[in-house]
Amino acid sequence: MRNYIIGIDIGGTSIKFGKFDLEGNLLDKWTIPTNKENLGESILTDIARSISENQALNTIKGIGFGVPGPVKHDVVISCVNLGWGRKHIVDEFKAIINDPEIKVKAANDATIAAAGEMYKGIARGYKNVALFTIGTGVGGGIIVNKALVEGVNGVGGELGHIPVDFKHNFKCNCGNLGCLETVASATGIINIAKENLRKSKAKSLLRRFNTFSAKKVIDYAKEGDFIAKKSLEESMRYLAQAMAAITYTIDPEIIVIGGGVSNAGPYIIELIEKYYYEMVKPFITQANFAIATLGNEAGIYGCCYLVK
Amino acid sequence: MRNYIIGIDIGGTSIKFGKFDLEGNLLDKWTIPTNKENLGESILTDIARSISENQALNTIKGIGFGVPGPVKHDVVISCVNLGWGRKHIVDEFKAIINDPEIKVKAANDATIAAAGEMYKGIARGYKNVALFTIGTGVGGGIIVNKALVEGVNGVGGELGHIPVDFKHNFKCNCGNLGCLETVASATGIINIAKENLRKSKAKSLLRRFNTFSAKKVIDYAKEGDFIAKKSLEESMRYLAQAMAAITYTIDPEIIVIGGGVSNAGPYIIELIEKYYYEMVKPFITQANFAIATLGNEAGIYGCCYLVK
Repeated sequence: MRNYIIGIDIGGTSIKFGKFDLEGNLLDKWTIPTNKENLGESILTDIARSISENQALNTIKGIGFGVPGPVKHDVVISCVNLGWGRKHIVDEFKAIINDPEIKVKAANDATIAAAGEMYKGIARGYKNVALFTIGTGVGGGIIVNKALVEGVNGVGGELGHIPVDFKHNFKCNCGNLGCLETVASATGIINIAKENLRKSKAKSLLRRFNTFSAKKVIDYAKEGDFIAKKSLEESMRYLAQAMAAITYTIDPEIIVIGGGVSNAGPYIIELIEKYYYEMVKPFITQANFAIATLGNEAGIYGCCYLVK
Repeated sequence: MRNYIIGIDIGGTSIKFGKFDLEGNLLDKWTIPTNKENLGESILTDIARSISENQALNTIKGIGFGVPGPVKHDVVISCVNLGWGRKHIVDEFKAIINDPEIKVKAANDATIAAAGEMYKGIARGYKNVALFTIGTGVGGGIIVNKALVEGVNGVGGELGHIPVDFKHNFKCNCGNLGCLETVASATGIINIAKENLRKSKAKSLLRRFNTFSAKKVIDYAKEGDFIAKKSLEESMRYLAQAMAAITYTIDPEIIVIGGGVSNAGPYIIELIEKYYYEMVKPFITQANFAIATLGNEAGIYGCCYLVK
């Protein structure tokens, strides 16, 4: 009997595994380190070995992968973090495990996280979801009519690269200027705070540090520090601008915010709502923002959804 | 035998009718004036009468409506152009024609136009389409996996209201500032050209006029007039910015441009591509832009698609 599903969220430093029953209940989880040597050539065999060590292959119905890069039709377009270029991840993995009865699928990790939140998290019951994961960068996932949106080039849901800023010219990891990620990620919040500290002579608790985290900016903003508050508001205004663009495109039922910055909770949502409503008020009277609830398990739940 | 479909594109000045066979071939078309008196209360009875005069009801399989305002689940959310507020257009129309065998559906007119281009126009064969109709305003339609995207508030595809401009502060018909429509519609092109004429002392053929059309700006831009070219480029850069946001959200297979401004043809597409690639180049090497081919018949074709 094939009664189990394995969800595998491949990250740049570790690979998360989840073992699920067919109803999507998480029964067990573990991680292994990501071996990026030789352009990540051993990652798939490492994964196959780890699965075999934990669960007999002939009891597994499906295996889903989340990959930190664009994926289209089960093919990784590119994945700098793992050392991969274009990679037929599903075909290669099937050749390794050599069990044609196991369904194998792959998708982008943030899109997978959106699916996870829809399957077992805060977006449960919704069919149309936008997810922003705001950490060091900004990831995103889009779901329309319960289907993960990959897009023709695999960049559907790459929300961190929506062009929003033509003022600061911070450089993005992708090579462009002005991406949402450069102004609204943890890095972006720091970028803007540093710039405001430079440009202004106002007192600020942030001036006590040479370097500081986005959490510091958020904490001081909550306490009313002028520069911290102004900076965070500026960041959240850019985020709201991207959210408004998404609303006028697919008008999702729920916009979910995950990642480290979402730990700031309702305070962040209040700021976003303030600017978001300014931009959509002729059309939208009631938006639906929520903080993600599955944390870093959203990915493995989404992988499970992919092959269930 | 019910062998016909009627597509009805309701505009602010006239109502376009198309009679189709079941394969979507346009057999006949006609228009009647839009009677907006008393908040457009006679529009649906006018339409029912006009259909009966042209085609026996018991030969009709389906009737589809395109409406110039947000529509959700066959209910018009609001439609200022026709004098309508929230209106159960499909239920009301079914009560008027009183023939339960006729399938009746309604959707936003620009979304319908996108469906028309997918059904019988330039986007034939594609499943994921973004359409911009650039005329006096900017309309839009989004199709994901062959389904029209209405969104939870009915504003899916309201691409003209994507916030893109935080510099000029032109006011949009919706009441907001900075919508795509204020800078990239025919009106928007004129807005920007006038501002550039005011701010610059450069010579321009446009200075011969008190008022001028977007077509004049485009024609003079083609001829190399500095102000006209700079203005049109600025407008098309905003359009490219909105298109990049859509790409990073749903990454459509084709982006179709219709409406009066699209008559400028390949010249417009070249300008858009220049700025679009700047914003998506880390991810997209080959975009797919096209000029709409069905002109103002896209709507009736889309209405046919809706009920076929």
